[in-house]
Amino acid sequence: MNRKQLTQLILKKKSFLCIGLDTDPSRIPSHLLKSSDPVFEFNKQIIDATLDLAVAYKPNIAFYESLGSKGWKSLERTIQYLNTFGDQVFTIADAKRGDIGNTSKKYAEAFYTQLGFDSITLAPYMGEDSIVPFLNYPDKWAIILALTSNQGAYDFQYVESVYEKNRLFETVLKTVSKWGTEDNLMFVVGATKAEMLKQIRDIVPHHFLLVPGVGAQGGSLQDVAEHGLNKHVGLLINSSRGIIYASQGKDFAKKARVEAKKLQSVMETILNKRYF
Amino acid sequence: MNRKQLTQLILKKKSFLCIGLDTDPSRIPSHLLKSSDPVFEFNKQIIDATLDLAVAYKPNIAFYESLGSKGWKSLERTIQYLNTFGDQVFTIADAKRGDIGNTSKKYAEAFYTQLGFDSITLAPYMGEDSIVPFLNYPDKWAIILALTSNQGAYDFQYVESVYEKNRLFETVLKTVSKWGTEDNLMFVVGATKAEMLKQIRDIVPHHFLLVPGVGAQGGSLQDVAEHGLNKHVGLLINSSRGIIYASQGKDFAKKARVEAKKLQSVMETILNKRYF
Repeated sequence: MNRKQLTQLILKKKSFLCIGLDTDPSRIPSHLLKSSDPVFEFNKQIIDATLDLAVAYKPNIAFYESLGSKGWKSLERTIQYLNTFGDQVFTIADAKRGDIGNTSKKYAEAFYTQLGFDSITLAPYMGEDSIVPFLNYPDKWAIILALTSNQGAYDFQYVESVYEKNRLFETVLKTVSKWGTEDNLMFVVGATKAEMLKQIRDIVPHHFLLVPGVGAQGGSLQDVAEHGLNKHVGLLINSSRGIIYASQGKDFAKKARVEAKKLQSVMETILNKRYF
Repeated sequence: MNRKQLTQLILKKKSFLCIGLDTDPSRIPSHLLKSSDPVFEFNKQIIDATLDLAVAYKPNIAFYESLGSKGWKSLERTIQYLNTFGDQVFTIADAKRGDIGNTSKKYAEAFYTQLGFDSITLAPYMGEDSIVPFLNYPDKWAIILALTSNQGAYDFQYVESVYEKNRLFETVLKTVSKWGTEDNLMFVVGATKAEMLKQIRDIVPHHFLLVPGVGAQGGSLQDVAEHGLNKHVGLLINSSRGIIYASQGKDFAKKARVEAKKLQSVMETILNKRYF
């Protein structure tokens, strides 16, 4: 999906909501456990219940890998199902990969070609040749960690450099944005630092930002939108546990929809005010 | 496997060689392609041919993921096979993961519990809570990227900080080493910078270092050993493509053994001089 299509999808659905599929068998409603693939069944029902409210879905790959090849199969089924909706959903593999060039090339194959995701999250530590292999696929996106929303973000991402006193996440934004374009690069920016979004927007005014941390990780939707939105929207806000685990009963998909609707309604108001 | 066992294994095999299993179906000898699982069959024959010469094997996870759930199955078979040799091999999942705490916990489950690896490589960008979940398993190891051997290492790993003018990889070594011990943490240090090993040893004198980049990525074994070895050996040197793709014919395993033997012989001389 290209940038124009993504912006149009957001304006059509009046939502920049991404739903994180951090699907954990120990938190799946018990009535699903007798299905042949409970993880996929759970995801499918969440997707069906929220498809008009969310523009993006983001399976968190760790949750699938922790189940072995069976989990990988559930991941394959989930992305195949998402891809039946074509340009009605943007898909993100939350994988946080990054390796030397010839290995990154294999990860790009794994997530873009083999699985068919639109995008993948990447860690920048290993530099240019670890990122570039993900930029050579038309209408696919590399989403680079800049400032994350966890406590550990303070360990290295805020380290100030001698040169221009840039903090590491600023150096990452400035450097990585030169390797690609606004049409194949996005950045992860943690929502717990909404006040930082203004500074980040000064560095990357036109890129899409993926903001985790609304919900379980804290962060206010209004604040994030105020500082993060740009001319072409340029924002995807993720919520995972707050939506998918809204209920552990038979009504889990219905309750997930209720939670998704709450966020989408706020987004609709924001978008209406700004773009219509 | 604990540190003492690993050191003893190295002294017993007179080798600190790690063989990287970057197994790519397009580079597997054609006679193996008719087997039901060519990737596993290839790995098994490489392992069988080199087991007395190598202390560690390091499947590169990207290569398996690029083949989908079938590839994950090959990975499962490979680690299961390696684990039949018990304490005769040390196993490394070259995965370069790292995510927020609850997700890193899932990756730890995936690689330690589900697959049964002794260790996993990790990227430090997301800080303490992304690493700590990997440190709570007895006799398991987190291997953190400090200075990598690729060109992209220069993009961020050498960025000098205002505080004490540490370069980022030095900050990583100093900070991460406080989160664990010499019994559950190792560091990745690229061999193309053998002259850096001395400086790195000043910061982490007692930790094991995993050195990629001897072979395809350049770097001299003698130089690395001179600066990298410590009282308890403390060194694993990896070679991947130089060994496993020594031949693409029916003699691939035999030729892999020849290449492994070359490296092991140099290691034996070095170890004999220093520890016997």
